[in-house]
Amino acid sequence: MGFWKTWFSSSESVATNKTTAFGEHTAGDRGKSGASSDNIVFSTERDIDLYELEELCDAVGWSRRPLRKVKKAIEHSFLVASMWQVRGNKRRLIGFARATSDHAFNATIWDVVVHPDFQGQGMGKALMKYVLKKLRSEEISNVTLFADPQVVDFYRTMGFMPDPEGIKGMFWYPQ
Amino acid sequence: MGFWKTWFSSSESVATNKTTAFGEHTAGDRGKSGASSDNIVFSTERDIDLYELEELCDAVGWSRRPLRKVKKAIEHSFLVASMWQVRGNKRRLIGFARATSDHAFNATIWDVVVHPDFQGQGMGKALMKYVLKKLRSEEISNVTLFADPQVVDFYRTMGFMPDPEGIKGMFWYPQ
Repeated sequence: MGFWKTWFSSSESVATNKTTAFGEHTAGDRGKSGASSDNIVFSTERDIDLYELEELCDAVGWSRRPLRKVKKAIEHSFLVASMWQVRGNKRRLIGFARATSDHAFNATIWDVVVHPDFQGQGMGKALMKYVLKKLRSEEISNVTLFADPQVVDFYRTMGFMPDPEGIKGMFWYPQ
Repeated sequence: MGFWKTWFSSSESVATNKTTAFGEHTAGDRGKSGASSDNIVFSTERDIDLYELEELCDAVGWSRRPLRKVKKAIEHSFLVASMWQVRGNKRRLIGFARATSDHAFNATIWDVVVHPDFQGQGMGKALMKYVLKKLRSEEISNVTLFADPQVVDFYRTMGFMPDPEGIKGMFWYPQ
């Protein structure tokens, strides 16, 4: 109950114009209910059910991570963005992304995930647009991320550039 | 006065074994004073004189940034590491680095700078070792950075890998 209250107060139905794309996917259900009640809603609320988030990450085949650390990471991320399918009074977590930042110059986006049922419908793009809009509203001008090979082209279409001016993303792992 | 008090309480003279390298550089002065009082000290203290930091960044030719934003970035970085030359009761800022993080999984290192007078003497490496040690002590296992072309090899010698498994560093700038 508390969740819904705070969630709706900080969420935005910015993707109302995306409802069509989503509506196509659920046209059958809409026909049954006879009401266009489906909606995709974006939120920056951090009060996310960690098990629901884990389920989403499982769905795309990510390795499981300790929920204690996921909780800490969410608490200390600069931005936590979630994407929800809302039907009547039911909600389902269908996308997630977060960003670390120095709150001044740069932000780095991590853990971008869209449920497979909602991929290929522009939902990843909508989620990223929401994230970029939020970061821009905080005057962050340098937005970075580390893209797996299979999503480099996706991020390129969003305006991200790989290795601009020869700048290399580098990783260090403990020996 | 307050600065020195807090600074010494949170600083580490971890580079005592670097004093030789540095001592070579200042052998003349040491001869004059007759005492081996030079030392390189590392600190995670955030109470850094922003003008002194700006002077350091000027020395390596970085574009100036609004001090208000630099202050905010320092406040909201997960780790702020500084490297000081200490002679008697005088200190000089000769190196700096900071990292953003989610406090759980990843950290990204930014603004690594070593004063030109101290470059080529292993001081950058000492500073990076200090940063990595601090991040490891916080159980951060995924350390990243974006390296300019001319320092990619330097970071490679520190164990950083460019594009591991094809992962691409990507940048987005506002249009």
